[in-house]
Amino acid sequence: MIWQKEIQLPEYQRGYHLITDTVLKTIDEWPEMGVLHIFIKHTSAALTISENFDPAVRADFENFLTQLIPDDPKMFTHTMEGNDDMPAHIKASFTGSSVHIPITGRKLNLGQWQGIYLCEFRHKGGARKLVFTIYS
Amino acid sequence: MIWQKEIQLPEYQRGYHLITDTVLKTIDEWPEMGVLHIFIKHTSAALTISENFDPAVRADFENFLTQLIPDDPKMFTHTMEGNDDMPAHIKASFTGSSVHIPITGRKLNLGQWQGIYLCEFRHKGGARKLVFTIYS
Amino acid sequence: MIWQKEIQLPEYQRGYHLITDTVLKTIDEWPEMGVLHIFIKHTSAALTISENFDPAVRADFENFLTQLIPDDPKMFTHTMEGNDDMPAHIKASFTGSSVHIPITGRKLNLGQWQGIYLCEFRHKGGARKLVFTIYS
Repeated sequence: MIWQKEIQLPEYQRGYHLITDTVLKTIDEWPEMGVLHIFIKHTSAALTISENFDPAVRADFENFLTQLIPDDPKMFTHTMEGNDDMPAHIKASFTGSSVHIPITGRKLNLGQWQGIYLCEFRHKGGARKLVFTIYS
Repeated sequence: MIWQKEIQLPEYQRGYHLITDTVLKTIDEWPEMGVLHIFIKHTSAALTISENFDPAVRADFENFLTQLIPDDPKMFTHTMEGNDDMPAHIKASFTGSSVHIPITGRKLNLGQWQGIYLCEFRHKGGARKLVFTIYS
Repeated sequence: MIWQKEIQLPEYQRGYHLITDTVLKTIDEWPEMGVLHIFIKHTSAALTISENFDPAVRADFENFLTQLIPDDPKMFTHTMEGNDDMPAHIKASFTGSSVHIPITGRKLNLGQWQGIYLCEFRHKGGARKLVFTIYS
């Protein structure tokens, strides 16, 4: 069985954002067992699974990644779309365009401390589109 | 068809560890064709696929990543759970919480030099839980 | 339903290469709805999804990653297979061995600016093998 739905998130500011609740609200047919795939249709934002409790984790992610992969136009040739564009592509490639989570007993089988993050790597990234697919 | 099983690994020390044999032992129903998804229910350990032969590769991974993303509390604000906690979240996000491997002819269709790694990013990470799902 | 096919790419030089057209030609059975999984059977090359238009993006990726994870034998112990081998394993682990793309209405449901990249991290990587699986 395949179930699929495409949604548009509200616009988020640059940084890491917990979207687990949005994910849970989007799914209206929970299979007994399966896998949820979430795909982001963009190349300067990404999805990851990380700590779901302390907002300092999300701030540390944003600060560390920007130090590691800086908005420095001298390091890149693709600068026409802004100093944050090429670094955003690299961050997004490292972080990933998909997350997969097992579904067990009609629920996401996440660990206790796991949440789903939208990683917005641009200052004005706009409203991002996600495609949800469940295989069961 | 969906098959699913959750296991708990023994506790591993910090570093990269080959777990291909454990994976093979966990699966007791091999479909003719499909995909194996392995998910780790933790945010300071990760899964990846890399070279399966030379143990120096695993040591180089651990050393290089710790140089790139250091256990330095001056770089992070989320330090309450130890100096290795926030770096572990970043390493885990780059490395990934899932691996997927095609199944072809009732076997994992890995390349000759590919093995499955558990990447333990904490000194005392404890026994990690994995969820296996096969779609076929 | 599961559909699977293994292909061998032509040999690419070191760097990032757009392979979306090759992917489209490989698939000869498009389901109405599903997910495409592409897996690379190698540990010193990887797959990612990124910007599909400006070739400067691919050059910036190659240059930045090589600056971040240098071909420097003093940093690694696994150097027997060449100075670009261990850096290639690390780059491949960060980038990933799999990409997943939703299929909607018998087409890949990529965003407007998304393309599929082969990331070749070795100078003489040879012809790389990919396994395609569609679940529907």
